[in-house]
Amino acid sequence: MKHIAILGHGVVGTGCARMLTENRERISALVGEDVSLKYILDIRDLPDSPWADRIVHDFAVILNDPEVSVIAEVIGGAHPAFDFAAAALKAGKHVVTSNKECVSRFGAELTGMAAANGVTYRFEASCGGGIPLIRPILSDLAANRIDGIDGILNGTTNYILTRMCRDGSSFEAALAEAQQKGYAERDPSADVEGIDARRKINILCGCATGVLHNDEDIPTEGIAAVRTADVTAAGLAGYAVKLLGRMTGGFLLVAPHLIPFDCPLSHTDGVFNAALLHGNFVGDVMLYGRGAGADATASAVVGDMVAALRGDSGCVTFAHGAALPDFGAFTCPRYLSVGAEDAAALLALVPGAKTIEPPVGEFACITPPLSEDAVRVLRQKVSLRAALRVREA
Amino acid sequence: MKHIAILGHGVVGTGCARMLTENRERISALVGEDVSLKYILDIRDLPDSPWADRIVHDFAVILNDPEVSVIAEVIGGAHPAFDFAAAALKAGKHVVTSNKECVSRFGAELTGMAAANGVTYRFEASCGGGIPLIRPILSDLAANRIDGIDGILNGTTNYILTRMCRDGSSFEAALAEAQQKGYAERDPSADVEGIDARRKINILCGCATGVLHNDEDIPTEGIAAVRTADVTAAGLAGYAVKLLGRMTGGFLLVAPHLIPFDCPLSHTDGVFNAALLHGNFVGDVMLYGRGAGADATASAVVGDMVAALRGDSGCVTFAHGAALPDFGAFTCPRYLSVGAEDAAALLALVPGAKTIEPPVGEFACITPPLSEDAVRVLRQKVSLRAALRVREA
Repeated sequence: MKHIAILGHGVVGTGCARMLTENRERISALVGEDVSLKYILDIRDLPDSPWADRIVHDFAVILNDPEVSVIAEVIGGAHPAFDFAAAALKAGKHVVTSNKECVSRFGAELTGMAAANGVTYRFEASCGGGIPLIRPILSDLAANRIDGIDGILNGTTNYILTRMCRDGSSFEAALAEAQQKGYAERDPSADVEGIDARRKINILCGCATGVLHNDEDIPTEGIAAVRTADVTAAGLAGYAVKLLGRMTGGFLLVAPHLIPFDCPLSHTDGVFNAALLHGNFVGDVMLYGRGAGADATASAVVGDMVAALRGDSGCVTFAHGAALPDFGAFTCPRYLSVGAEDAAALLALVPGAKTIEPPVGEFACITPPLSEDAVRVLRQKVSLRAALRVREA
Repeated sequence: MKHIAILGHGVVGTGCARMLTENRERISALVGEDVSLKYILDIRDLPDSPWADRIVHDFAVILNDPEVSVIAEVIGGAHPAFDFAAAALKAGKHVVTSNKECVSRFGAELTGMAAANGVTYRFEASCGGGIPLIRPILSDLAANRIDGIDGILNGTTNYILTRMCRDGSSFEAALAEAQQKGYAERDPSADVEGIDARRKINILCGCATGVLHNDEDIPTEGIAAVRTADVTAAGLAGYAVKLLGRMTGGFLLVAPHLIPFDCPLSHTDGVFNAALLHGNFVGDVMLYGRGAGADATASAVVGDMVAALRGDSGCVTFAHGAALPDFGAFTCPRYLSVGAEDAAALLALVPGAKTIEPPVGEFACITPPLSEDAVRVLRQKVSLRAALRVREA
């Protein structure tokens, strides 16, 4: 018999408890031994929980129980999540988590502690919810040098951009709708400003390279400034607008991008997430699915429990990243829009730009690759109404 | 030092040798020991091969070398591939393969032999080339009950259908082009008739359920009868036409299907492959990438070598399948086309059918779900010009 504890009886914790219960026979067969949920840690009493008899309020009960071999930390946030995970690893218990903040900030420390104590720290659920994403990078595709990752890693912003694209909704209306449907938090800033996606691309890059950066060093632009008129113009020109977390040519960034309809990422709509990986032998691989929600996230957390109990290899021990390259040198094609009166000036400044059907009263084009520095200089010479990056197929 | 042997110096074998050479440092780091390619078995001498010094003509040399711990069988076909694999497993060597015919026909025997001899038989490359597909089913998503698989599993037919859809090419012209580009064999029948896709859906279903069927029992329809006019009509109605291998509601089948543009599978174009899996917790997950080619296939074969050398769990031991359910009861919506003169008769026979823009001179509709038996009865009453299955989003 193997015993599991879950820290946190919220949405994800409840999903994990349900999966361990409903799929118990299958999970036990995978592990080769009965797998039992022994504790759920929560500060609340929750007498109506189907697992009320297993709720404890004191983490020490779990930590000091030698029967518990795997702990799922699904509390979220930095503290006490980090402290619980660290104590569990030091006590020789495997830790699995959906906590992207904790992995992104403390991944080097926690994976180091795991290695030092002969256990593992696994975090498949921290990026892309239920999508197998981290294990493919660390195992199936690990013999490849992964040299590119482009991810739609935040369901809230993708839902908003999909509504703007399909129905011409404004950002504000689409956000309000996402909040009403429970896809966006009451304070949506971590999603809308790209903070959530930034943590996830940091983790994915860490899995591909072994190096985890300080996520505040990653250049990040959210979607609040994206105009419906730009999304519409992009659609007419053959592109979808998506918030991408990217690892490309040594750069890391999060920003809204135009993606050509030829690229399968462009068809990742609504709350779905996807990541397009490029490996030096496998070429392009895309992994797509539900990036959030109790059941999809539970699938990844419980999958990690099984991996821990079976002793699967393929865990990374992160190193702390050195400085990222100067972002001013990052180069890609651009979608630029200016007032109609500035069209001639813009075209003179950007040779080779391709004119497209613009927002009303404006002039818009897709440019050849331009660096961030070049766009900054351009802004001083002409008043840009919109400037978005383009991710070519 | 770990020693590897490759059986077959063809396209895939050469790709594997290249990957083991070019990515040797990375692969050795993953395994924790230097990994070395010791032998390539081929009946030819191939003095110009970069690995000419490692070519042997006698399988016994490999079989009897106790240093060889993993053998990659990339010969293809049933024999001698099966015989070599069986001998290797009995000699206590892991076997990895890209050979879908061998896995689909002899998978139960070979996985049984592996288990009996304390080694593993792995075959990630047998379905979907470089796409992580089998390991996600057997590991990452294994805690889910996988209750649906819809796969675009054959690049040749997908290339042909993509050309017919995008450019209005005829089947014959698209096939000739595929042959010219090296995407189709001179004898394309195994691809065009769905035999290749049938083997692959059999293997994927086996991974999801543990049960491998006799693949000749799987109802299979190829793409030779698909008319460009139907592909065009489907496109105007909001559907792509794709050859799908399906596991759904207990049924297994291979047949061309209309897929709505809302479904991400519908955007899998050209030689790319994809599979949409449905798990009872994770929901929909799609895995997409290159389904063939030396490098992509090598990525999967070498990934399996690493898994074997690291001792990763997640291997299936297949049982032989019982009889499949009566296919006459299989039910799905249909695309039907008749001569314009038969429109009224068809509509009278199929209440609730939705009329769509038809091929010239015909009448076409999308029906509510109809069983195979119902369509057979319909054929006796009205002359169907086309009848294709529809896979709803």
